[in-house]
Amino acid sequence: MRILHTTPRADGFWMPAEFERHDGCLMIWPVRSDSWRSGGWPARKAFCAVASAIARSEEVTMLVDPSQYETARAMLPAAVRLVEMQTDDAWARDIGPTFVRNRNGTVRGVDWGFNAWGGLMDGLYFPWDQDNHAARKICDLYRVDCYDCRSFILEGGSIHSDGAGTVLTTERCLFSAGRNPKLTHAEIEDKLCDLLGASRVLWLPRGIYGDETNEHVDNICAFTAPGRVLLAWTENRDDPQYALSKACEDYLLQQTDACGRKLDIVHLPIPQMPVCIAKEECEELDIWDGVPTWTPGERLAASYVNFYLANDAVIVPQFGDPMDQNACEILTGEFPGREIVPIDAHEILLGGGNIHCITQQLPQGGRSGLYA
Amino acid sequence: MRILHTTPRADGFWMPAEFERHDGCLMIWPVRSDSWRSGGWPARKAFCAVASAIARSEEVTMLVDPSQYETARAMLPAAVRLVEMQTDDAWARDIGPTFVRNRNGTVRGVDWGFNAWGGLMDGLYFPWDQDNHAARKICDLYRVDCYDCRSFILEGGSIHSDGAGTVLTTERCLFSAGRNPKLTHAEIEDKLCDLLGASRVLWLPRGIYGDETNEHVDNICAFTAPGRVLLAWTENRDDPQYALSKACEDYLLQQTDACGRKLDIVHLPIPQMPVCIAKEECEELDIWDGVPTWTPGERLAASYVNFYLANDAVIVPQFGDPMDQNACEILTGEFPGREIVPIDAHEILLGGGNIHCITQQLPQGGRSGLYA
Repeated sequence: MRILHTTPRADGFWMPAEFERHDGCLMIWPVRSDSWRSGGWPARKAFCAVASAIARSEEVTMLVDPSQYETARAMLPAAVRLVEMQTDDAWARDIGPTFVRNRNGTVRGVDWGFNAWGGLMDGLYFPWDQDNHAARKICDLYRVDCYDCRSFILEGGSIHSDGAGTVLTTERCLFSAGRNPKLTHAEIEDKLCDLLGASRVLWLPRGIYGDETNEHVDNICAFTAPGRVLLAWTENRDDPQYALSKACEDYLLQQTDACGRKLDIVHLPIPQMPVCIAKEECEELDIWDGVPTWTPGERLAASYVNFYLANDAVIVPQFGDPMDQNACEILTGEFPGREIVPIDAHEILLGGGNIHCITQQLPQGGRSGLYA
Repeated sequence: MRILHTTPRADGFWMPAEFERHDGCLMIWPVRSDSWRSGGWPARKAFCAVASAIARSEEVTMLVDPSQYETARAMLPAAVRLVEMQTDDAWARDIGPTFVRNRNGTVRGVDWGFNAWGGLMDGLYFPWDQDNHAARKICDLYRVDCYDCRSFILEGGSIHSDGAGTVLTTERCLFSAGRNPKLTHAEIEDKLCDLLGASRVLWLPRGIYGDETNEHVDNICAFTAPGRVLLAWTENRDDPQYALSKACEDYLLQQTDACGRKLDIVHLPIPQMPVCIAKEECEELDIWDGVPTWTPGERLAASYVNFYLANDAVIVPQFGDPMDQNACEILTGEFPGREIVPIDAHEILLGGGNIHCITQQLPQGGRSGLYA
């Protein structure tokens, strides 16, 4: 693995869209007991369900702390590859490299700086050194060269690409005080374009209400095709989410993408009933640094937009809500060639994220399988 | 990765010869300070030299304890892939899987039991659980299925294959009391044939004098081609090695291989001067369990036979001895198409092994690169 100090855009690389073909998917086994209740056991079952569903249509590699290797191997199907790696938690989307590709099918990784969603300002755990080192190790594992972008703080969940020059992100997250406070808006936009090989950035103002990542875009809006997005939505004007989703829609209606297209916007409902953490669930989380992870009854940032697009499937979070079925039907319409796989995401939500947050696609390279 | 309970022979798999083409080579970064003096620093330089030389003709993956990841990455060339894995020490030959292949080019691993060269009887360290688990993890890393042979204790350094049905081993090691004392000679021979896809086992009586592995074959004798072996040799009848090498030659002269061929035997001299550990070197080893690893002046099992055959090179141990050059010349004659790369092996010898012991070839599979 070579460490590169040029930029993907200058080298002719760009971030493919998630809806394009993948060579595989990366996940990380949940371990830390202040993120995952009951010592991580319920979350592990949910991660296994997600990994098993994805493994039916693409290769899945699960990274695991050495202490959990044997357990993970016993719980996961044989099709899932298990590889040791130390991390601080289990967020492959946010700590993994962002993979970029060129016209020849060569794949490289972008290694962003990671500071646990806000560092000492409003980060969610400390330390985060293992997480910050993971992207480079992952590039090495897959034998791809790696762009050194550690001086710029960004998580994979805060960006989407249409694979054709357009990047979708949120102002609330990228302009947060805990990430890159010394950079101007224009400088951040330039970084995104240089490092994702893009020419147009769409700036949604907000994300999902209560999202502790400073409102990552991958919880509120996603491309389904070039020129078409799903937007998390509620018609309930008393819900604090209404104003946030409306602001995003108002913005998107005025924009064009990198190709000059207006965007088709498809509403994807949020759950009808707020998803909140129960008192008993709070009590089963270990305490970290004297501060409980949640307070009983706190609303979690539940959204169906946080799905994962596998080659032949859409892995859709479910919350035991009347809207579960509705969300699956809309996604069936958007992705007619793919199986819709609904998975109970409650335990992943308790950890602070959702299905998209715990996965990272490996775009298809020019050679089959890995990037050997 | 599937765990298989059949045998390679029954499934049409066999162990290719090391002189056949490889897809790569596996090594493990040296860490433990009771095996490697001065906290491992001098050994790491030697391992880097070996890895760099091999990487010029085949892919090298170095496994590393998380604590040493950053240091290893900084010391190794970019061409060497670094992957985290916990092990008890750095002997890829002995703890790695033995790779077997079938006619279609499918590769699988054989996961032998490992008990640190003799378990509680005369093993060299305790515990050895991480080492015993490594072969299976390595199979998973390379996405190859794995034969479960953990009930049979064997290290990769105790076997050589000619890739055509013949296995070379030593009685002293395989019939040692610390490995498989409940099995008869015939049962052990059957195991070797079943698990290496062989039909003939050649039983050298002894190995190199003072070899603490109970005299592994890879220190005394190696195939250079079907029907041809190199044998560690001395003409000095006062050297305790003389009787051991002579006993091996006497045996080999009476044998035929799996194809019914008599064997050509090429003498490869041992170093002219015994290689011994100095008092200062002993003092730089950490103490383990109250027992020093070596006593000052102890003779080390130095042998030029412990080379590694890379695709385009022979990595040859050197000891600062008058015979160094002689050994390289003989190997030049045996491997005319390969570059002879002499590497100072003194620090590896202090750890208890040599270049072949710290490497493990990955035979060429039917698909290019990895076994994806």
